Amino acid sequence: MTVSKESQTRLGEVAVQVAGLVEDAMRSDITSALQGCDPLLAEVLEYAIFGGGKRIRPLLTVLSSTICGRRDGQVYLLAAALEYLHVATLIHDDVIDHARTRRGRRSVRNKYGMAVAILAGDWLHARSMHLIGQLTGPDGLSVFCRATGAMVDGEYLQIRHAGDIALTEEKYFSIIERKTASLIAATCMLGAMLAGGTKEQQQALGRYGKKVGMAFQVVDDLLDYLGNQRETGKKVGNDFLEGKITLPLIAALGQAEAAEHEELTTLLAGDRTAVDTCGRLSVLLEKSGGFRLARSRARELVGEAVAALDVFSSGEEQESHDLLVAIAGYILARKQ
Amino acid sequence: MTVSKESQTRLGEVAVQVAGLVEDAMRSDITSALQGCDPLLAEVLEYAIFGGGKRIRPLLTVLSSTICGRRDGQVYLLAAALEYLHVATLIHDDVIDHARTRRGRRSVRNKYGMAVAILAGDWLHARSMHLIGQLTGPDGLSVFCRATGAMVDGEYLQIRHAGDIALTEEKYFSIIERKTASLIAATCMLGAMLAGGTKEQQQALGRYGKKVGMAFQVVDDLLDYLGNQRETGKKVGNDFLEGKITLPLIAALGQAEAAEHEELTTLLAGDRTAVDTCGRLSVLLEKSGGFRLARSRARELVGEAVAALDVFSSGEEQESHDLLVAIAGYILARKQ
Repeated sequence: MTVSKESQTRLGEVAVQVAGLVEDAMRSDITSALQGCDPLLAEVLEYAIFGGGKRIRPLLTVLSSTICGRRDGQVYLLAAALEYLHVATLIHDDVIDHARTRRGRRSVRNKYGMAVAILAGDWLHARSMHLIGQLTGPDGLSVFCRATGAMVDGEYLQIRHAGDIALTEEKYFSIIERKTASLIAATCMLGAMLAGGTKEQQQALGRYGKKVGMAFQVVDDLLDYLGNQRETGKKVGNDFLEGKITLPLIAALGQAEAAEHEELTTLLAGDRTAVDTCGRLSVLLEKSGGFRLARSRARELVGEAVAALDVFSSGEEQESHDLLVAIAGYILARKQ
Repeated sequence: MTVSKESQTRLGEVAVQVAGLVEDAMRSDITSALQGCDPLLAEVLEYAIFGGGKRIRPLLTVLSSTICGRRDGQVYLLAAALEYLHVATLIHDDVIDHARTRRGRRSVRNKYGMAVAILAGDWLHARSMHLIGQLTGPDGLSVFCRATGAMVDGEYLQIRHAGDIALTEEKYFSIIERKTASLIAATCMLGAMLAGGTKEQQQALGRYGKKVGMAFQVVDDLLDYLGNQRETGKKVGNDFLEGKITLPLIAALGQAEAAEHEELTTLLAGDRTAVDTCGRLSVLLEKSGGFRLARSRARELVGEAVAALDVFSSGEEQESHDLLVAIAGYILARKQ
């Protein structure tokens, strides 16, 4: 799949414009929701929400509404609600992982302490559901809550399989579908629901979101080994150090020749934090085709995502269609 | 306010019966929600939800629906949803407080670790909102989300005023109204909404819940100093050790004679964990009338709660009325 230079440029412009409008929606919603509230709560939410971030999820909501024929203030408010949930999960993740930084700044947990961080996540979770209930009714809320439930389920699956080198590719995809893709699928589906899209359109966008979300996670797992720490803001090999078995490793174990397989299992059984372990592991993953297979899976997923958009006949919403395709392409190409 | 021996006995019977039906509703809902989910999630939820507890909140929901003329399976499901949220907050509280035990057993955090605990709380939060949205629509969801937002706000207020001995009685009541009473008020209001109660009935039950919730917290804060550790399961003086300034202390500081006031402030500025600090503090709180004033405030709140029920003309729902009055009385008398 190739995305034209023109589409890429247009995506960049639209992304900046939408991010600005979604941030306006968040700021105005937070201001009204916090009337009479404690100033510390306002300070923490400001810090957590407006600290940057790619705003890919709200962009997906907005484009999913637009392609179904609607783009107004309510669409940006829905996008804001979905971004709140994303921020809430990042805050709770940083508590769970004892993360000191997030997006190049101190994490909420590190700056304000654990109690404040857990509670801020809970507040955003509640506000997110409140808005989604108001905007999309019980049906939308049901889609959303199933997605957040699936996220938790995916995290549990991952926790239970930590360090399990017998993890299959199938199980890996089942984990990432739940923990990452379910919410992105809901993000797209809710955009379609708000816009009054047909059931077919809702499902097509849900499928697009699911595939894009899975591709996003596969690329994330690749970047964990191959990324530049300065660009990603994350330590290289972090997943491996935490015992997360991801696709490059699963693929390498499945394809490696006998000698390399033995070296891989020895490395995995040894001291993971030893200075040269991670570097040697990367060499073995490259040699056994682990990175190659993961990249090829990500490409397949992006292809499936784009194919799901076929139900949208080319016409007046051609631009939204092209931008959704461009996002899928961007996900494959991203370096951070 | 006195509650007849008969009403107390009847309350005990109804409480057991309702707790059983709400637990059935939770079990059946959890089973259907968890189909295809990770077994660890099922295990943790089973442990967290069915580990005892007084089930006062679901009883309040059920009686609030009943007094407005409805009592069926949906009422028990709504009660289950509100209990989920309560359990979610307890799980997150135990993470925040590093609590090792809860209800005489290991806390979820202690037994399964922090990641599992935070995520289990998030799952229950989402499930709770999902059900409330389905059962009471956007209006009910809005009442509920405002309450959970207020809880967080109250916790922040408390965190920001930790150790602040200049805390006023007014600020104290503002904290407990948000962190404890808002959810109990919502619990009662949602029961009335589900039953199709009039606006007047909804507001009356909301007011009853708010006052009962505040009385509950005042008594909790009294028990923190006066309770028997074996009965409450909590260490005596725990709030004081954590820097929480509660009503007995605020009242004592406001009423103490010069010499006692000086001793109190010296104690508060010194090493709180010193062996005899807490015992001496209790003596001073008694002497300065801190406990007496707190008890009298709790009695006033319970009186206001009962008065709010006046809109329910005695008639066929007399029993629900009497039971709500009996709960208010129980809260005043409870020892754990």
